[in-house]
Amino acid sequence: MIRLLIAAAVAMSSSLIGTKILIRWLSRLRIGQPIRDDGPEGHATKAGTPTMGGLAVVIGAVLGYVLSDLYHGIYTRTGIFVMLAIIGGGTVGLIDDWIKVVRERNLGLNKRAKLLGLLLVAVGFSVLMLGFTSAHTELSFTRIAQPGIDLGDTLWTVWAVLLIIGSSNAVNLTDGLDGLAAGAGTFCFAAFTFIAFWQFRYPLAYEVPHALDLAVVAASMAGACLGFLWWNAAPAQIFMGDTGSLAIGTGLAGLALATNTHLLLPIVAGLFVMETVSVILQIGAFRFFGGRRVFRMAPIHHHFELGGWPETTVIVRFWIISGLCTAVGLGLFYADSIAAGVTELGR
Amino acid sequence: MIRLLIAAAVAMSSSLIGTKILIRWLSRLRIGQPIRDDGPEGHATKAGTPTMGGLAVVIGAVLGYVLSDLYHGIYTRTGIFVMLAIIGGGTVGLIDDWIKVVRERNLGLNKRAKLLGLLLVAVGFSVLMLGFTSAHTELSFTRIAQPGIDLGDTLWTVWAVLLIIGSSNAVNLTDGLDGLAAGAGTFCFAAFTFIAFWQFRYPLAYEVPHALDLAVVAASMAGACLGFLWWNAAPAQIFMGDTGSLAIGTGLAGLALATNTHLLLPIVAGLFVMETVSVILQIGAFRFFGGRRVFRMAPIHHHFELGGWPETTVIVRFWIISGLCTAVGLGLFYADSIAAGVTELGR
Repeated sequence: MIRLLIAAAVAMSSSLIGTKILIRWLSRLRIGQPIRDDGPEGHATKAGTPTMGGLAVVIGAVLGYVLSDLYHGIYTRTGIFVMLAIIGGGTVGLIDDWIKVVRERNLGLNKRAKLLGLLLVAVGFSVLMLGFTSAHTELSFTRIAQPGIDLGDTLWTVWAVLLIIGSSNAVNLTDGLDGLAAGAGTFCFAAFTFIAFWQFRYPLAYEVPHALDLAVVAASMAGACLGFLWWNAAPAQIFMGDTGSLAIGTGLAGLALATNTHLLLPIVAGLFVMETVSVILQIGAFRFFGGRRVFRMAPIHHHFELGGWPETTVIVRFWIISGLCTAVGLGLFYADSIAAGVTELGR
Repeated sequence: MIRLLIAAAVAMSSSLIGTKILIRWLSRLRIGQPIRDDGPEGHATKAGTPTMGGLAVVIGAVLGYVLSDLYHGIYTRTGIFVMLAIIGGGTVGLIDDWIKVVRERNLGLNKRAKLLGLLLVAVGFSVLMLGFTSAHTELSFTRIAQPGIDLGDTLWTVWAVLLIIGSSNAVNLTDGLDGLAAGAGTFCFAAFTFIAFWQFRYPLAYEVPHALDLAVVAASMAGACLGFLWWNAAPAQIFMGDTGSLAIGTGLAGLALATNTHLLLPIVAGLFVMETVSVILQIGAFRFFGGRRVFRMAPIHHHFELGGWPETTVIVRFWIISGLCTAVGLGLFYADSIAAGVTELGR
């Protein structure tokens, strides 16, 4: 409990300070984000805002995790593997952001290279999890009421890789309005703090190895996102860039896989799913129905912006949706565990 | 559990729809909020925004509460008394808002009449609680680890009245930026949903009468605030007015008193406390140190606005502070209950 608090507090304060330092440093170097030419027109004013703020998120989370238990020095493999995945995702994003800035265009790494990088991170994480922890290879919703379908090592790896890549791309798509992804990320990581802590409290019911360490990782990421949001709040002084969005995405997927709640992830992270589905629908309709569009622009937050909602209205309303999704996901998890008599099962 | 869900969902949707209807209706009648002449200059553009949106919050919360258990029809006195306090606070606010609109000035009811109205509500609530429920007359933090100091009926009544008046004034002061009070209110009511539900799950430990009903009240208010926030998000299409802020304030105090967590309230609702303290400091310094000011302007959100933070930045940052306060409060409540062995005490 105290470890969680230390982790969240350290992560938040170091991300808070780190982001400020990044803003100063990047502004001095005049390193700013080129804005996509084909986005909403109002976004042109955002050109030149420093990016790569996700660096402060990752560093903050690592510091929070490491400093949370300096005294006892107990860090478990499961927790470290998830942290490594976060660092890996962040690094792929950082390379991408760096190329964008140097070439001064909004495109960055070509898609294939980016995918390859993420693939490496995802495969590495899955292999580590299967080889060195007692990860469950079941397709599981909340781990408890339904025992889950055993996928076997190979299928689980495929599933894990897809989930990590899907999740990091989903956060990446969502990251298009000031503070949107950071806020929604905070909600999701807070939820996983609760989920993992609960699994730690009732180990006999959940059999999740090293659940407390996972809760610490989640708390660190929640704190780091919140600290970053302080500066990222509209009007943003810095963007998280791919560094942030890929780190947050791999982190969410890693936590869901490690806590064996992967099927709950799409509900907890409902906003990211909604954004991704909007892009898929848009592209699908355009390709298969002769150039028709479902939305004015995808991802869906631009649709509403072009529909006349002020940017801040879209942000707050999407946060409301995100908060509701997370609340529903947490409610499901809790209701399921009560129904299964988890609290009576002993600990 | 299902009752909580129904309450929150009904309250949210009716407040969502109700606020929209109010916006149309008030705009057609050209009933708008006059803006204080002495506020930040940028706020002049807000003149004419419809006010009294709190009406939709109160109606939404009542509907959520009433419809949550139509089938069984079980409503308890404690829950009904808190709902009555909310309605009472809302009514005082509504009268105040109405006079403001009719007289076209920002001042409304004179201070003494408003205080008298709140006093009536507060005394009525306290007497009902003491006379007709088994309310505890103890000064209590989380009700469990420390047994609390018994105040006796008279002192408890005085304390309850002060808390209700203080709390409603605190929310009233905070309500000065788009969505600030509605967002912070959502956090606080969500926290009380958890607290009261927890007390319902472990009745032997807490001895709070009708805790489930209190959780339903809190969930209704949380849903109603969130539904209202949809329209109140910056740039606001409607303000909650005193109708909303006094209802939220009495609701929070009422729930804290009924769940016997009054000393936890200032932590959970830390943002409201911060705003109130800033006003007290400002006035105190002005009076006693010969016209000196501590802040550029009080309440403190205006201080930062005048200091150059864009309005949306202040809002999001204050939400972050508010969310942190609520999280710390909830963490204290939970840690305390674990330390006291509540989950082992049986239910």
